[in-house]
Amino acid sequence: VDEFAPLARIRAVLCEPSHPGNIGAAARALKTMGLVRLELVGPRAFPHPDADARASGAIDLLQSARCHESLDAALAGTTLVCGLSARRRDLTPEVSDARAAAHEMVAHAQTGEAAIVFGPERVGLSIEALSRCHRLVRIPANPAYPSLNLAASVQVMAYELRCACLEAGAAPPLQGSRVRPASHEEIELLVQHLEQTMRATGFLHPERPGRLVQRMRRLLARARPEAEEVAILRGFLRSVREPENGG
Amino acid sequence: VDEFAPLARIRAVLCEPSHPGNIGAAARALKTMGLVRLELVGPRAFPHPDADARASGAIDLLQSARCHESLDAALAGTTLVCGLSARRRDLTPEVSDARAAAHEMVAHAQTGEAAIVFGPERVGLSIEALSRCHRLVRIPANPAYPSLNLAASVQVMAYELRCACLEAGAAPPLQGSRVRPASHEEIELLVQHLEQTMRATGFLHPERPGRLVQRMRRLLARARPEAEEVAILRGFLRSVREPENGG
Repeated sequence: VDEFAPLARIRAVLCEPSHPGNIGAAARALKTMGLVRLELVGPRAFPHPDADARASGAIDLLQSARCHESLDAALAGTTLVCGLSARRRDLTPEVSDARAAAHEMVAHAQTGEAAIVFGPERVGLSIEALSRCHRLVRIPANPAYPSLNLAASVQVMAYELRCACLEAGAAPPLQGSRVRPASHEEIELLVQHLEQTMRATGFLHPERPGRLVQRMRRLLARARPEAEEVAILRGFLRSVREPENGG
Repeated sequence: VDEFAPLARIRAVLCEPSHPGNIGAAARALKTMGLVRLELVGPRAFPHPDADARASGAIDLLQSARCHESLDAALAGTTLVCGLSARRRDLTPEVSDARAAAHEMVAHAQTGEAAIVFGPERVGLSIEALSRCHRLVRIPANPAYPSLNLAASVQVMAYELRCACLEAGAAPPLQGSRVRPASHEEIELLVQHLEQTMRATGFLHPERPGRLVQRMRRLLARARPEAEEVAILRGFLRSVREPENGG
């Protein structure tokens, strides 16, 4: 048994990185810890010579990195999404520190697909992006100066993921559940369906949507629904639009 | 009691760093984790604009960094010295992984002075330098590509030192949530409301209810909804029964 096998099911996602050098340094950080999958969402400049230079011996990760137009596309197929953020915000997903999140991701990646998402260098993950995450991950840091470089954050998370594999390999893996968790895409379709229905019933006012949809997304992220549960909820929403009151 | 007080007694020592940019990045990595002491042994170029640029908000660490002509000078006053090395060599000091070494250093630094020593970028610590160390510290890494960037190694060690302080101090947990979780009764009322609405829309057939309600209860148990989220969901369910399509 390869204790590091879960690393092949954990993708690192960089959202809108500004500096191509950081992409290269992130690729190097990932490869030193045995991670192999790098996904980029709207990089400002990529490919780029600065990325190649900083990647050093991890050029292969840059070459196999995929560029996406949206975070949703980069997350396709995942069933556990962790977002790194140093900020405190309202309406965040459940907070987890780097070590605990790494353990959870490695346990999940025994069978499922997981992602660790990093925001742009200066501003960090947007509320919109965080609403796609099941966990908000914090790296313990000096409150007077918590600003880790992007590649440094990637290094710490990748390191914790490798350590978590080492520890999980020492212990028997968690028992595999037979239920299929809903994929990111299935959850998104449910959120859209719910939003349409809320508009149709008049509950959601188009002019003042507030943070209702965001809150529902957060609730679902916490619930981590099974595929079958999503199907049930969508069946219920369909019945709201097309009531069979007669039959 | 300040749980991070030991960090003031742990110095980071960079031996003969080739690239001033790495010195700056190392300073930044140290400061993000609350370390404040940087010692340099025979840097090729320092001070240097590249160091300042990569240090970002950690310029103060560069300004207070001291340059030494020998490792021995940089280690003056220390009683525990740990040297980081990825290489296997004969006649090494006792080997320790990064986490175990961090715990030992923090325990030592409750009262004594400790140092963590990093070698030059390409060649690592010399036999001569390692002979000054009580521990050879290894960061777990991909055997096919174990070459962490110098600043990345500093970041991982500094991170482990901060984590070790947190554990030694048994610090209070990371998050204190202000939200009120929904009570058992509130969840039950939501489930009843959902069931009534599902019957009203025809989604739930009274003669063959199946395990639908039971499944919804299970989903909600997993989601651990906040009181406010329950209120939102019940508002939506009310709008299903009494649509304001007109207004």
